[in-house]
Amino acid sequence: MSGVSSRPLKVILPDSELPRHWYNALADLPSPLEPVLSPATLQPVTAEELGRIFPPALLEQEMSTERFIPIPDPVREAYLAFRPTPLYRARRLEESLGTPARIYYKYEGVSPSGSHKTNTALPQAYYNREAGIRRLATETGAGQWGSALSMACRQFGLGCTVYMVRVSYEQKPYRRILMHAYGAEVLASPSERTLAGRQTLARNPDSPGSLGIAISEAVEDAASHDDTNYALGSVLNHVLLHQTVIGQEARAQLSLVGEYPDVVIGCFGGGSNFAGLALPFLADKAAGKEVRLVAVEPSACPSLTRGAYAYDYGDTAGLTPIMRMYTLGHGFVPPGIHAGGLRYHGASPLVSRLRHDGLVEAVAHHQSEVFTSAIAFTRAEGILPAPESAHAIHQAVVEARQAAEEGRERVILFNLSGHGHFDLAAYEAYLGGKLQDYVQSDEELAQGLAALPQVAAG
Amino acid sequence: MSGVSSRPLKVILPDSELPRHWYNALADLPSPLEPVLSPATLQPVTAEELGRIFPPALLEQEMSTERFIPIPDPVREAYLAFRPTPLYRARRLEESLGTPARIYYKYEGVSPSGSHKTNTALPQAYYNREAGIRRLATETGAGQWGSALSMACRQFGLGCTVYMVRVSYEQKPYRRILMHAYGAEVLASPSERTLAGRQTLARNPDSPGSLGIAISEAVEDAASHDDTNYALGSVLNHVLLHQTVIGQEARAQLSLVGEYPDVVIGCFGGGSNFAGLALPFLADKAAGKEVRLVAVEPSACPSLTRGAYAYDYGDTAGLTPIMRMYTLGHGFVPPGIHAGGLRYHGASPLVSRLRHDGLVEAVAHHQSEVFTSAIAFTRAEGILPAPESAHAIHQAVVEARQAAEEGRERVILFNLSGHGHFDLAAYEAYLGGKLQDYVQSDEELAQGLAALPQVAAG
Repeated sequence: MSGVSSRPLKVILPDSELPRHWYNALADLPSPLEPVLSPATLQPVTAEELGRIFPPALLEQEMSTERFIPIPDPVREAYLAFRPTPLYRARRLEESLGTPARIYYKYEGVSPSGSHKTNTALPQAYYNREAGIRRLATETGAGQWGSALSMACRQFGLGCTVYMVRVSYEQKPYRRILMHAYGAEVLASPSERTLAGRQTLARNPDSPGSLGIAISEAVEDAASHDDTNYALGSVLNHVLLHQTVIGQEARAQLSLVGEYPDVVIGCFGGGSNFAGLALPFLADKAAGKEVRLVAVEPSACPSLTRGAYAYDYGDTAGLTPIMRMYTLGHGFVPPGIHAGGLRYHGASPLVSRLRHDGLVEAVAHHQSEVFTSAIAFTRAEGILPAPESAHAIHQAVVEARQAAEEGRERVILFNLSGHGHFDLAAYEAYLGGKLQDYVQSDEELAQGLAALPQVAAG
Repeated sequence: MSGVSSRPLKVILPDSELPRHWYNALADLPSPLEPVLSPATLQPVTAEELGRIFPPALLEQEMSTERFIPIPDPVREAYLAFRPTPLYRARRLEESLGTPARIYYKYEGVSPSGSHKTNTALPQAYYNREAGIRRLATETGAGQWGSALSMACRQFGLGCTVYMVRVSYEQKPYRRILMHAYGAEVLASPSERTLAGRQTLARNPDSPGSLGIAISEAVEDAASHDDTNYALGSVLNHVLLHQTVIGQEARAQLSLVGEYPDVVIGCFGGGSNFAGLALPFLADKAAGKEVRLVAVEPSACPSLTRGAYAYDYGDTAGLTPIMRMYTLGHGFVPPGIHAGGLRYHGASPLVSRLRHDGLVEAVAHHQSEVFTSAIAFTRAEGILPAPESAHAIHQAVVEARQAAEEGRERVILFNLSGHGHFDLAAYEAYLGGKLQDYVQSDEELAQGLAALPQVAAG
């Protein structure tokens, strides 16, 4: 807390208060999640099938209903390099909005890779190393997840192969170079390395790639090498679990200054950013506390607000297990918005359930309004946010304005999940008046939903 | 300090320990610095002349011999957004080097603009606002200083005009966009805005610009507008003064874990990076403590190691006051190394004096060896350093290897002054084997020294 002002600006948690457990929201669901299905059999996927690409500890976390899962000491030690992260009160932003709301944000941009992705990259690398795995394969779009995993693999002595969507590989070289600096192998996807890649290239030698193809390549790589596993940066339960250090810390930090949020906000792509901040408040909500949990997605990729709650594949090619989730259809190709980390057709099954059960709200915003709030935030608070995080900022601004209109106090908490130092081309487009918004008609969205796998939803 | 290991990884200072004073090394010089001379009269520059472009408070700091100068509360409050910064022990780097040395680094990359430059940008903006100034003009090369000042001006409600060397403006757009995001006006220099710029363009419409021209433009802009002052990011005493928060914090953090450095290392361009960490240890040295202070410059721009200790201009055009310093000559054009922040022909007069008096050591390294150590550091510690900071890393590696050879302990402290997230093109060049080293012959360097102004040095 600031030593020069009676009003808190920054709230720091001592290292001794770094969480010792992850919070597992599966413990607080009214009923269990539907089983994940095998794409081959359409029956519940077996541990043996998943064991080909994930280590036992992560599979156990994926299924566990224990409320608190201990964080191993080597992971806590690695977290301590940048955690606990600071919680700030956005006083200048409040003043510029003339709002009676008090706006707090948790800042994950101090992580070495610049975003919250490090929080799950480190334990995933650790558990794989403990299981005797020598290398991880993964996919990445713009590179936020790939760079975090590259760093984590290096910390735990694992090799790392990243299948990077070709168009990003060529047009957004900076995060690719960062992955190289960490010693990772980075391949433009589709690549010649895998059957999935070669088949795609045979059909279209100039394929720009897609996250779906890159996932297929990484999964194939992992499944076909005994010493190699697959790692995913969002969507799955164990990934969300690892991110709950964010919300646990934020809850403790707010408590230090005598605050509790009325609303908790995170941006939403696959779900780990939002869930990391919001889930630790879910137990409070279950215990009767009034707190709103708001997921913010791009209007151009509106899975939670306009998708179907249905069984679908995690990838475009239909090679991954089938999960019940909000989805726009695995064939849906999101428009080229600048928040690359939010361009995903599906949604975490866990957050989808919470949304379906009314425990989580969802809103969607256009990128032009999101960037307007991002610039207002930058000029008020001094930190340039990643475009993904800026979705949460915009919702915080909307809530703060509403509080001003209603003339009542409100405590707003949002997740500033990463800095925007890799995203300046997006800001240039915005500042140059070249940002485009995308609105799909209901008919367009219906096309994506027409090809869902034929599974009876519960 | 880490809660999970008996060996410290990270040392955090509570906000209450943020320094309340800057340390002024002028108090500990054996004899005063030589006066700064007016370029017009070659006589000591008058307060009136300097008052056209600097506010009274900064001029007072420039000349003061008070050992401790209080940090105003609004500046401390702004510092608290990111200070105290963490001190780390580079355990993995030590292990990879097999050294008995203990290597500590102060990490300034958590500042909102990503480097230590924010430490002086904030007080410069503050004092100018207090003096009724409405706008600051400055120059920037690659943009580290310009982006820090843009942020600080926005925080204190000042306008900001940045003259950015044209070749950087066009080829390195990212920091330019960051300055725009903070609301600054950024002009490619030479520009049509100033007489100096127009004259340069008249001679050469395709001029790529230089730091020297950009300084001339910014100084002219400030001198010709009553509501506008000039701001400099290094070299001057008051700039170095502001940076001493780094060394004061580091000294306190080391003390918390019972350590005192044998050697303190900073990279050296104009001097503020090195001085910020090293000067607070100077008083100890004056009091008889054994501590080596080592400035690390690029071999391609070797002012401290191969320059003359002489009177020279601060800019290429010869419009600034004349200072006694180590210089390669104001006409010296440094080769295009990637550590853009170290490409300066001169050196802080204060550090120059300390070097001349044997209180500070200087070494020079080639960028290829610097990047080799930067990659080793990145892979060991997880943080990608700015190329400037990597010069300090390399010297730390050299010292640690020497300790290993000698088989004795050594405590090494260096300044990790910024992250390298804006510098990935440089890493790409290194990883792709495309980095070039530059060696000037004595004859080449002598050319730059032939045109020094004719002033009798004391």
